Amino acid sequence: MRVREMISTHPHVQGSTADALLRCIEECYACAQTCTSCADACMGEDMVKDLTQCIRLNLDCADICAATGAMASRRSGRNVEVLRATIEACAAACRACGEECQSHADMHEHCRICAEACRSCEQACREALPQVH
Amino acid sequence: MRVREMISTHPHVQGSTADALLRCIEECYACAQTCTSCADACMGEDMVKDLTQCIRLNLDCADICAATGAMASRRSGRNVEVLRATIEACAAACRACGEECQSHADMHEHCRICAEACRSCEQACREALPQVH
Amino acid sequence: MRVREMISTHPHVQGSTADALLRCIEECYACAQTCTSCADACMGEDMVKDLTQCIRLNLDCADICAATGAMASRRSGRNVEVLRATIEACAAACRACGEECQSHADMHEHCRICAEACRSCEQACREALPQVH
Amino acid sequence: MRVREMISTHPHVQGSTADALLRCIEECYACAQTCTSCADACMGEDMVKDLTQCIRLNLDCADICAATGAMASRRSGRNVEVLRATIEACAAACRACGEECQSHADMHEHCRICAEACRSCEQACREALPQVH
Repeated sequence: MRVREMISTHPHVQGSTADALLRCIEECYACAQTCTSCADACMGEDMVKDLTQCIRLNLDCADICAATGAMASRRSGRNVEVLRATIEACAAACRACGEECQSHADMHEHCRICAEACRSCEQACREALPQVH
Repeated sequence: MRVREMISTHPHVQGSTADALLRCIEECYACAQTCTSCADACMGEDMVKDLTQCIRLNLDCADICAATGAMASRRSGRNVEVLRATIEACAAACRACGEECQSHADMHEHCRICAEACRSCEQACREALPQVH
Repeated sequence: MRVREMISTHPHVQGSTADALLRCIEECYACAQTCTSCADACMGEDMVKDLTQCIRLNLDCADICAATGAMASRRSGRNVEVLRATIEACAAACRACGEECQSHADMHEHCRICAEACRSCEQACREALPQVH
Repeated sequence: MRVREMISTHPHVQGSTADALLRCIEECYACAQTCTSCADACMGEDMVKDLTQCIRLNLDCADICAATGAMASRRSGRNVEVLRATIEACAAACRACGEECQSHADMHEHCRICAEACRSCEQACREALPQVH
């Protein structure tokens, strides 16, 4: 990912890249991929019927992470209230998905890794919020 | 759109389709399209430089509407808190984009139509919230 | 959906809206929603384990339909070769998903409706291609 | 990104991760972010009116890269013809966007970086194709 290079060369940014927000963007794209993969890996398990709730949370999390990553990438104009609400929804999705995945991390390695990605993205979202004002 | 047919044939739904939520799904997909179009139409205007803020809000609104429409379409499992936060973020995005578009509705017909779509989607989001619990 | 109103008010369009392409846009957004719903309804079936392939095709179809609908909505600038390749990929995805859904349409009403949406979107894609040049 | 860890723990994969396809997934997510950023950075330039074509190609490329990254992440079931057509559309989008960005790489550092990301993603797509069969 070239997040820092891209944001730092935006004509309105002029050096102030808001590092926590950069990390949030990276984590959102990474978590969207991880959750898409985890939903699909759960689908491949023999016990898929017991993983329905996990797949649901994975797909929801992937959707909001993708939207948040794109929205947080923009620096032209301003949309503070909306970006804050979206990052907060994303953090909530990561928390819900991370807790669900963690609950069967012992059984499925993909869920263990996904729980990690979700926690990391949730934290990045929460740390980015103070920079969105 | 076949939203009602699809949701009403979901094995867990059994007739209770939560009509306001169905309308929210339809409005989200429609508003995602309208905002994508409006961003692009603004880009084609001679005065594009004065429409930067509008394009920004259009693109952000399209992103969150698409995520919300997909998430609200799911009925397997549960993800209430996340869906509520996402619908709220979507309503905020529609309000911001709708107000911006309305402010130059006299000059650009695409902005007038987009303001209408945003208001309609914002209202559908707010009316769907009581059904998500 | 306000596809026609939006495209016809684009500053570069001037009345020539390419009707088959408009229908393609509408079908793509509708099919993205239907496939998202069908994946989720399949997930809720007791026999979900037998529907893995169907869910896979649903999710793939939803992704490419969403991308195609957005791309086909743009009229500023030109990107003919890319739009054609994307519409062709979308038609292929709709065909694959429609055939899979059709094969268990007798058992699952959501698959019957989804097969219909996929066929309709595939046809709209194929009819739009001659207008993209 | 945790692409390798996720794919390698998928129950159907069993070690054979198809390395070129993993790299394609990573490049698609990265290129989606870069193109989203580049469209937005172009929007912030004083000469935005001269960058309309670039923004169009950026947005189209971001859409197809996101769809391709998600689709290529799936290993449950099979969808070979569709995945191939989508990767090919993605490679075409990256080529078109990369060439446009390169043509004003001297003037805009974000376009120079984006051209690089597009070339890298195009190559990854082309190298992944032989692994999709």
